[in-house]
This record gives sequence, structure tokens and C-alpha cells, in this order.
Amino acid sequence: MTTFEVIILGSMAALPFNGKITSAQIVRYDNIFILVDCGEGTQMNLQKYRIPQNKISCICISHLHGDHIFGLPGLLSSFQHSQRKDALYIFGPAGIKSYVEMIIQLTQQYISFEIIIKEIDLSGKILIHSFPFFNMYSFPLDHRIETSGFLFVENLITTNIIKEVLHKYDLTIEQIKLLKAGKDVFLEDGTTLKNALITKQHTSTRSYAYCSDTVYNEKTITYIDSVFCLYHEATYLHHLLDKAIERKHSTAQQAAETAKKANVKKLIIGHFSSRYYDFNVLLEEARAVFPETYLALEGHTFSV
Amino acid sequence: MTTFEVIILGSMAALPFNGKITSAQIVRYDNIFILVDCGEGTQMNLQKYRIPQNKISCICISHLHGDHIFGLPGLLSSFQHSQRKDALYIFGPAGIKSYVEMIIQLTQQYISFEIIIKEIDLSGKILIHSFPFFNMYSFPLDHRIETSGFLFVENLITTNIIKEVLHKYDLTIEQIKLLKAGKDVFLEDGTTLKNALITKQHTSTRSYAYCSDTVYNEKTITYIDSVFCLYHEATYLHHLLDKAIERKHSTAQQAAETAKKANVKKLIIGHFSSRYYDFNVLLEEARAVFPETYLALEGHTFSV
Repeated sequence: MTTFEVIILGSMAALPFNGKITSAQIVRYDNIFILVDCGEGTQMNLQKYRIPQNKISCICISHLHGDHIFGLPGLLSSFQHSQRKDALYIFGPAGIKSYVEMIIQLTQQYISFEIIIKEIDLSGKILIHSFPFFNMYSFPLDHRIETSGFLFVENLITTNIIKEVLHKYDLTIEQIKLLKAGKDVFLEDGTTLKNALITKQHTSTRSYAYCSDTVYNEKTITYIDSVFCLYHEATYLHHLLDKAIERKHSTAQQAAETAKKANVKKLIIGHFSSRYYDFNVLLEEARAVFPETYLALEGHTFSV
Repeated sequence: MTTFEVIILGSMAALPFNGKITSAQIVRYDNIFILVDCGEGTQMNLQKYRIPQNKISCICISHLHGDHIFGLPGLLSSFQHSQRKDALYIFGPAGIKSYVEMIIQLTQQYISFEIIIKEIDLSGKILIHSFPFFNMYSFPLDHRIETSGFLFVENLITTNIIKEVLHKYDLTIEQIKLLKAGKDVFLEDGTTLKNALITKQHTSTRSYAYCSDTVYNEKTITYIDSVFCLYHEATYLHHLLDKAIERKHSTAQQAAETAKKANVKKLIIGHFSSRYYDFNVLLEEARAVFPETYLALEGHTFSV
């Protein structure tokens, strides 16, 4: 099965702490590497976890708070030093274009590769980029400033031959290849074996949603309904609900409630407040509501 | 003796590498903490080496290349999160003001402490800030963009009583205290013991100069003549002199020649190209010219 995974590079809220950096993760589908958010130190953790940085073709920025963007200038500089040639897409809310342009201008950085910056329409769920068999969508979150969630959906249609039907015919390897490629086959008796008769198509739609930063909001659930894997911020424990609402963040319990209501299979929680030295308190709170919850720990890889 | 030391936070050139960050160091004089340059990850290394970040009263930025400034946005954000109250001075070349202002504006970061940004006049050696017994100067370096060196000079005058003269008088403890404070003393016989007769003043002028980034230039030597300790960039080995000249950097040999000609006591070399996995090759080259050379390794403290 095609590789579809999430590699956590950082998941601290607001500030790096105790050697751990703020939000950044890689969404990998086959040979497509997408960086989601880019906190300070992202380029260091790309090195540390041996992610081939020049394979990153897209950067998705959720919002323009420092803990999600302060690693971007250094990473662009790093791309340039490694003589990157491939174009780079950057998706983010309004303002991302002037942020990137200002950094390049100010540091008089010569950029020899193309940077295509697309500011996101936050009016609803929007297809922002398509790869073969893999689509990226944005959708609005509810935070103090304009913030986007991201949805990554596999759209792979595979053709499988129905074995129970196959044995009725004496087919050559070439003929089986044709059927797998969706073609009809002409048989020796002059008849045609219709592809639809002997094959069935399987649509694989593994999906991953990224929700950080956001206050608990039922509307979010409509965008992430039934995704396989959900990353959701869980900045605080639920006894700090007032603080979460005031700062427009979520508690671990709310992240789990969102996962449950959205009917997802797996929940990864992150964006941890530095008040929690041991994040397991957040994990326990979330698991009480949604058992299939995991911590977004640096360097961990999750299969989608 | 008053603490006067340099604590290295980072010294990679251009890019972080192998877990090590780009330029940043603390110049500490007594309880005054000055941050010189602020590469990406500076706030992480302040935590790592347990530097009390809110004691930093001044930040000196040599120039606006990313490897010297990309940690500044995160550090300012960190100051705010730790509820800093004290004013912060930032010194840097033209453009530093708009860089800081843009970051604050873009990330909608509320800053509750005063930031005083002073753009440096690069026409010569300029006194940029005075503390009690400690002065900070800037001076021009020769790099691809406007770049400033910094000079930190202790100016401590201590009054010592001349023991050989003291024994001629029968003085009370109070009278000795008056003399140490620079006062004259009235003796029992009605005469006045002039302070100048029994004390001598000692002027302590320990000094530290920071030169990064710069091509070798004899004019620099006039600004750093006879400093006690010199930090000088040594990006390349001397066989890459052409590259050093083209990129307006120095070789380890040139750093050592500068130290020798400036008649300094101690040289710290840094700003290492990531092509050198083991920086000892740079150290060896420099020591062949100037034996009192040391490597600017992260976490190392040098006494001035």
C-alpha cells in the first residue's frame, strides 16, 4: 500500500521548551512530502529526523502566529544553500505572501527557485492542490486570527480482478495485464470479455486532517467528518477550559470529543502548553473520551 | 574581580548543522547580559545553557543576514510570554527597526515591554551604550551588506590605599573608608590628609571585540587594537581564500593574523562552514599563527 504517514517535528504551544520545538510536521504520501506549519527550529529537526528537505514540495501554514511560522525564513534560506531547483508551493492565510517577501527582501537573500504563494480562501472547504491520487483541502478553524485547517485525502482507484470469475477463462498474462489496466479482452472464440465482468474497482480514500490552532467548535466537525486520522490541538487540560476559550484553544477532552463526534479512527493530540512537563496527563484525559488517542511526540511517525 | 565573560550559544555559518545553531553569544559583565547576534534557535540554547533570558537588556545585531537574526522573532515572543517588564535595547544596522516592527505587526504579537531600537552609524567607532563601568561601541566591518563589529570595554576605576604610606598615620576604620571613597580626611592635629597622598587609582580596562562577518581588512585592526579578547569569524580554511574573498568572509589563518596584528591576548574563532565536521582543522590553522586561539563551541564560556 502506498506510504501515507505523518512525521511529527514539533508540537509545543507558543514556545520551544526543554529541547522541543513548536508546531511542524511532515505529511508524506508516497514520494510527496508536505510540511505543515514551520515553528522555529523546523530545519534542525528535518536534519535530526533525516527528512530529505528538498523533497518538500508544499508548505501549508495554518496561521501567522510565531510558533507556526518562525522557522520559515531559516528553511527558505536552507533550501537556497542546498541549491534547490524545484518550485515550492506555500499555502497560508492572508499575509503569508508579504511575510515571505519581506524576509527575502530584508535579508537580501537571493532565491533561485520559484516560490508560488497562495493565500487561502477561508469561506469553507476548498481544494487547494492536487497531486496524482492525493488532494489537499483547506477549511476554516476558529482561533484568535485567521486560521486554516488542512485535509489530505488519498483518491486512489485500484482495479482488482475477481478471482472467482478468473478461473472460468484461460487467459494469458498479457490478457490479465490488459484487464488490470481497465481494458476489455478479445478471446480466441471471437467474443469479448468485458472488463466490468471480471474486475472490480476499489477506491482508497485514506485521509488525514490537521486542526491547530482552534477553539472547540461544532462546525469544524463537518469538515473532518469520518477522516481516518485527525491531528487536533490539545493545549490544556479541561480544568483550564476558561483559559482555552479565552485564548481560543482546545482542551485534551475537547480534542477527544471532536474526534468522537467526527467519527475518526485515530486521534493525535499536540500543541502542548509548556506547563505540562509530562504530556501523559493530556493523553489520559483524551483517552477517557476517545481511546485511540496518541501524543504528537517529536520524531514519531503515524501511519494513515 | 567583576565577572566579564562570553558564553557561546551558536557559531555555525549560514545554516544550523548537526544540532548546532548559527551565530549567537552572551557577553556578560557583572549582572549585565548582552546578546550578540541571534540565529535561529537562540532561545532554545538560552534555555539549554540556563541563561536567565529576562536579564538580557541589550541585543546587538551585527547584520541582517538570516543566520544572525532569524532567532529574534522567537526570542521577542518568548520575552512576552515570560511577562517581561524591563525595556529592551536592540542595536543593529539600518533595517533592523523595520524588521522588528514587521514581525510584531504580522504576528499580531502584543508587546507589553518597551523596545528601543537604535540603528547604528557605521562611519567609525561609535559609543552606542554606557552601563556603569562598561561601555559598548560599534565599528564597521567589511561584508556583503552593512555589518557592524562590537567592542565591549570595562571602565572601572578602583581606589586602593598605598600600604607603604598608610602605616605613617594612626587612622580609624571610618577614616580609611573615607579615603577609599575618594575623600580627604581631617586629622586630630588639625591638618588635612589629602586623598591623593595616600591612595592610587587603578583603571581596569578589560575588553572584548566581536568581528563577524567580515573579509580580512587591515582597517578593522585599528578598531580592535590591543583588546584583551577577540572573537573573529573563521569561516574557511586558507586554501579557500578565493571563496572567502568572494563571499566576504575570513579564513582561520586571517583571523589569527588579525589577532596577531591587533596585539590581542586571546582569540576565539567561530562562524564555521558546515563543510568542516571537525572544527579542529580550523583551530590548527589559526594556532600556527596565533597560539592563544580557541574554538567558539556551543555552551563554552570564555573569561575576558
